[in-house]
Amino acid sequence: MQHSSALTTALHHRSIRKFKDQAIPDELFNQLIEAGKMASTSSFLQSVSIIRVTDLHKRQQIREICGSAGGKGQMYVQESPEFLVFCVDTHRHQQLVPEAQTDWTEILLIGAVDVGIMAQNILLSAESEGLGGVYIGSLRNDIAQVTDILALPTGVIPLVGLCLGYPDQEPLQRPRLPTSLILSENAYQVATQTDLAIYNEQVKAYYLERNGKVFNWTEQVRNTLAKPVRPDILAFLHKQGFAKR
Amino acid sequence: MQHSSALTTALHHRSIRKFKDQAIPDELFNQLIEAGKMASTSSFLQSVSIIRVTDLHKRQQIREICGSAGGKGQMYVQESPEFLVFCVDTHRHQQLVPEAQTDWTEILLIGAVDVGIMAQNILLSAESEGLGGVYIGSLRNDIAQVTDILALPTGVIPLVGLCLGYPDQEPLQRPRLPTSLILSENAYQVATQTDLAIYNEQVKAYYLERNGKVFNWTEQVRNTLAKPVRPDILAFLHKQGFAKR
Repeated sequence: MQHSSALTTALHHRSIRKFKDQAIPDELFNQLIEAGKMASTSSFLQSVSIIRVTDLHKRQQIREICGSAGGKGQMYVQESPEFLVFCVDTHRHQQLVPEAQTDWTEILLIGAVDVGIMAQNILLSAESEGLGGVYIGSLRNDIAQVTDILALPTGVIPLVGLCLGYPDQEPLQRPRLPTSLILSENAYQVATQTDLAIYNEQVKAYYLERNGKVFNWTEQVRNTLAKPVRPDILAFLHKQGFAKR
Repeated sequence: MQHSSALTTALHHRSIRKFKDQAIPDELFNQLIEAGKMASTSSFLQSVSIIRVTDLHKRQQIREICGSAGGKGQMYVQESPEFLVFCVDTHRHQQLVPEAQTDWTEILLIGAVDVGIMAQNILLSAESEGLGGVYIGSLRNDIAQVTDILALPTGVIPLVGLCLGYPDQEPLQRPRLPTSLILSENAYQVATQTDLAIYNEQVKAYYLERNGKVFNWTEQVRNTLAKPVRPDILAFLHKQGFAKR
């Protein structure tokens, strides 16, 4: 799987949460950052900054935010060879152009999409070189504290983390929604209950094989969304100067 | 450049805005969609849907929204072999779990990052197979009208477009902010005015070479941000059921 094409790499993606005790060579790490930098950027605004977290105490603090309270969840945040935090950054724009109106919601959308594009450039490039990784959205469990830990100024928010390293596991690929449900032509096609039920059966079969758990996609959606979902985010965004209007 | 590795592909990225009159073979197109589907998805929510726009009248309508008023800008939206619109989609979650609280701002962030990740999987995979493309954020110039054109229901928003095809141009790579400005270790490093000034000179040299224009990054930031930036977005998001709290 060394140096595989982007297409082949993407088709074989699995999130990796267990890594060998082997550092990523500096040269490769630097190339991955270059790959991220060359990503498309909306309106050439370059609204993304990356914090590379090497300080083990900070890693532990962030892992505690990511994992369930009191538990040992997401130890890979603490132990992966590399942990990057991708931030939406309007601080530079403010430095250069103090009258920049970075508090429009549009700027948050630009930044969030640019983060996804840049981060995926890095992850896919890493995977094509034999590395693996997993995104860490759970740093938004306490996004304000992560902001403090990384000393982010106003105009910068930590959006998603990425663990990288050499894989020490070979997980199964989790079945995705069928193409007929995510791809429409010219006009949105609403999913039928039959299609969704068939997909639920596929997810159930996957979890039964993986860990004997009886679990389907509807339950995943309910567990995640039938409750307040990180309700502090909007107030935090406003405090950092985002999405105020 | 056929079948190049993800890393090599990413390092050589240029946005392509001029395409040969040559269709993407069905088999390759389908593989690109599969590559997109296999992308990481936050909390396994699979919050992205794609609308493939093949209807030439709809293409023209969207191009008119993207281009400057009355002008012929962004003709590639109309003429590229493929044009995909990536949407944040919570409609399926509502179908399955009517009590799902998809109006938290967190859900918008999840969706926007997932859009960027999936779209970049497709673009980078396409580039590794000899295709090229360009993102189209300007459909958000009138995001409500694009929503009507694509018949998106409540809970779905069009976030970014992607033109794809065989390149008929070889543009230069635009210089990016230096790594020292976008990558910090453990704590955010504020850019120095000297670093920003050096970068401005690089951008100026690039535009002089490309088209004889005298233009630097500060001017790009000012032109984009020193005015209301798509001020209708927040009200539109609320109307579609996003970011209300």
